Amino acid sequence: MAKTKKQPRPKAETPKGFRDYFGAEVSERAEMLQKIAAVYHRYGFDALESSAVETVEALGKFLPDVDRPNEGVFAWQEADEDGKGDWLALRYDLTAPLARVYAQHRNDLPTPYRRFAMGPVWRNEKPGPGRYRQFYQCDADTVGTASMAADSEICAMLADTLEEVGIPRGDYLIRVNNRKVLNGVLESMGLADDEERSAAVMRTIDKFDKVGEAGVRELLGKGRLDASGAYIDGVGLTDDQADPVLTFLTSKADDMAETFANLRKAVGDSTMGQEGVAELEQIADLLAAQGYGPDRIVIDPSVVRGLGYYTGPVFEAELTFEIFDEKGRKRQFGSVAGGGRYDDLVKRFTGQAVPATGISIGVDRLLAALREKGRIGGTATGPVVVTVMDRDRMADYQAMVGELRQAGIRAEVYLGNPKNFGNQLKYADKRNSPVAIIEGGDEKEKGIVQIKDLVLGAKIAENATLEEWKERPSQFEVPRGDMVAKVREILDGQGG
Amino acid sequence: MAKTKKQPRPKAETPKGFRDYFGAEVSERAEMLQKIAAVYHRYGFDALESSAVETVEALGKFLPDVDRPNEGVFAWQEADEDGKGDWLALRYDLTAPLARVYAQHRNDLPTPYRRFAMGPVWRNEKPGPGRYRQFYQCDADTVGTASMAADSEICAMLADTLEEVGIPRGDYLIRVNNRKVLNGVLESMGLADDEERSAAVMRTIDKFDKVGEAGVRELLGKGRLDASGAYIDGVGLTDDQADPVLTFLTSKADDMAETFANLRKAVGDSTMGQEGVAELEQIADLLAAQGYGPDRIVIDPSVVRGLGYYTGPVFEAELTFEIFDEKGRKRQFGSVAGGGRYDDLVKRFTGQAVPATGISIGVDRLLAALREKGRIGGTATGPVVVTVMDRDRMADYQAMVGELRQAGIRAEVYLGNPKNFGNQLKYADKRNSPVAIIEGGDEKEKGIVQIKDLVLGAKIAENATLEEWKERPSQFEVPRGDMVAKVREILDGQGG
Repeated sequence: MAKTKKQPRPKAETPKGFRDYFGAEVSERAEMLQKIAAVYHRYGFDALESSAVETVEALGKFLPDVDRPNEGVFAWQEADEDGKGDWLALRYDLTAPLARVYAQHRNDLPTPYRRFAMGPVWRNEKPGPGRYRQFYQCDADTVGTASMAADSEICAMLADTLEEVGIPRGDYLIRVNNRKVLNGVLESMGLADDEERSAAVMRTIDKFDKVGEAGVRELLGKGRLDASGAYIDGVGLTDDQADPVLTFLTSKADDMAETFANLRKAVGDSTMGQEGVAELEQIADLLAAQGYGPDRIVIDPSVVRGLGYYTGPVFEAELTFEIFDEKGRKRQFGSVAGGGRYDDLVKRFTGQAVPATGISIGVDRLLAALREKGRIGGTATGPVVVTVMDRDRMADYQAMVGELRQAGIRAEVYLGNPKNFGNQLKYADKRNSPVAIIEGGDEKEKGIVQIKDLVLGAKIAENATLEEWKERPSQFEVPRGDMVAKVREILDGQGG
Repeated sequence: MAKTKKQPRPKAETPKGFRDYFGAEVSERAEMLQKIAAVYHRYGFDALESSAVETVEALGKFLPDVDRPNEGVFAWQEADEDGKGDWLALRYDLTAPLARVYAQHRNDLPTPYRRFAMGPVWRNEKPGPGRYRQFYQCDADTVGTASMAADSEICAMLADTLEEVGIPRGDYLIRVNNRKVLNGVLESMGLADDEERSAAVMRTIDKFDKVGEAGVRELLGKGRLDASGAYIDGVGLTDDQADPVLTFLTSKADDMAETFANLRKAVGDSTMGQEGVAELEQIADLLAAQGYGPDRIVIDPSVVRGLGYYTGPVFEAELTFEIFDEKGRKRQFGSVAGGGRYDDLVKRFTGQAVPATGISIGVDRLLAALREKGRIGGTATGPVVVTVMDRDRMADYQAMVGELRQAGIRAEVYLGNPKNFGNQLKYADKRNSPVAIIEGGDEKEKGIVQIKDLVLGAKIAENATLEEWKERPSQFEVPRGDMVAKVREILDGQGG
């Protein structure tokens, strides 16, 4: 190591908004991603892994609520020979890189190209509780077809995926809307070219859940007195002008055909709007034919996805079971996946329209949901620990773990300072070990080992009376040759 | 999407030195990493995933041949509220982050802490052929014990790992050396405090393979006339001073005991050197007791690892089978993993010495080796493709792929423009599909489907005479209800 001047010690801290994941957190995520990949693969999707780093120009600016350059991404300028090179950035999602990959490799890729991708993405946003600046996404997209069969396939696959990882039917709902319908509503209101008022209408639509029908009507018109007493300015539309928005927002009926009729009314003469409704009908028909009913996938006009690049159908998967939030209030678990059709992303690179549609699963949200449902544990069983009674017989202890591993049993030798035996048992406890093995000089001489059932031991220590404790010994003395068999027996018993 | 001014189209390119990985490249890597993780886990190691981003100060500067600030890493300064914040960087390996993690979480982690980690790392280096700026590593480390049992365990685990992923015994060799021995040699030469000449001796040692014993003696002394005619200045040592280096370099004997005797001679009176030899003896004894002989793990004084932070034993796994290099010359495949003991990395943060040792597998190198050995294929079988004969019966075709997937068969509907049937078969070809299914109006009416065995079809087209072609039809007409069974039969036949 090159000698360095005395410097202050570095702080042992992750950068703000980043965190470390340990043990079961890592393996449970890996297992869930494997299950998801298996479903995607069965549907014909191929794996793609692009690099974490892209040029800023290739990524483009599609994050919601981001206007300033490089806001929202981690970016830096490359130092080339002349001092200054390309601006590079960490990817903020897996869709923008897909558009770049497809444009770059389109002559070698099949058309349509179905691909899945999983991995971390990075956002340079203000971190909050449970909100990190690096998180996992798991995406599937079909590039190169305008067919609604691609969109319906994505929705069906998403339903299969959620069930595969352990969200039972009835606990999730995939809601489908269409950007064209929303644009059609704006068109039928005569606002198609009025960007400012269109945006105001969109924001108002987003408040429907909170303020209801009457509230929306006020906000679209003159304005509204807030619950807090503040007056919110309205968009300034007449009642007639506001009608399509209200029709749209209240279009969802129990009967799908009625929903579609309401939507057709809301978009009026707008060609784009009518097209949007027709697309939703196609998706609904295809899904119905495959047996995906509205108990799993439903047309829902209230879905608005934040990302700017969607041009047609949009999807959102919500988990509908209730949890308690940090304030102890019941609420639905909420969204775990979202996506939609984005027909213009590849065009940015090639100039030619390449239709595409896809879905992105929020991996960490879905993992949290599985923990809520008790589907995954969060703590894993540790290894069998072979204790060290005689420092000079390390080779013997390593032979013991070798035999256990040969039998497929996770095992390790204690490698700390063996002097204090209590520390070895504390270590086994911290490791969540199921079994500890002891072979001191006496045991060695007699050709036996002591095997401690740590799970049973802990239970007994916690609950048992002295009699029970005597009756159910948690430590066994067996011939050295029977060690593996006895450990296996104890582990099987613990598993049962 | 916010309206933007007309801008030039972005280039559809990965940044220089980065690449995309497709299909089998991704899944084969994932499968190999799973196998490695399983071995590490069986040895008692726990998964850890730290974030890709660390503070520059936490990462430290340990890359070889890097002196200027932030050279070798991708780094940027964070914009905080005052405009300027911490310098952040992408991790360049998995060891520096482990030291940070252990220092940060040491009160919650068991001691010793065995952890494994896998994922991409980034180096801001000049890219070259097959050399990328993002690549995968897969590490296992034990933190918090100075016991050589930890080092020998790492070596044994590495041997098991290589065999587990498909490198047969005899095709790899794990070579073990000790930095203390090297430092002992320098000490016995009286160069312990002469940084400049020590570094010159180290560089000369690295040339032993090329220039041999006599060449090294010249380079340590007055200098040497190069094969190219250039004169290389020597280190300026006397012959006596140079002796320990030569003894060290030629110390490897067929008999392990003899090797150790030679090493003891080379380090002379140096306490550190004698300690280093003793440590190597301990490692050799422990490995021998577990049955890991010199056919798998060998003490080899010529191993020098580039990274600056090693303080004791160092390891290197080499694949010994021969391949042809880009110029058609035979050479050994070479190194796929390396590591060693680094007792001072955690101390940087805490001020307290925390001994640690570990190994890092070069994932992409090991994958390349498995491809060389024919252990993995590089191309994967595609999905069964259900063709679209009648655009209006998409629901029927989706029902067919649904049935196939239910049976665990990878399948997809053709989602391109169905007009040209030839394009559909070209698509199936590009997808490497094993089977195509055809159900036109006639078939529908008769309740049958056509099933094309594309693998057999390709073989017949390539080799068969007309008679064979007639005898071995590659297209089958079966009742619609028998579709899944027939596809399964064909796939099983192809696999055989």
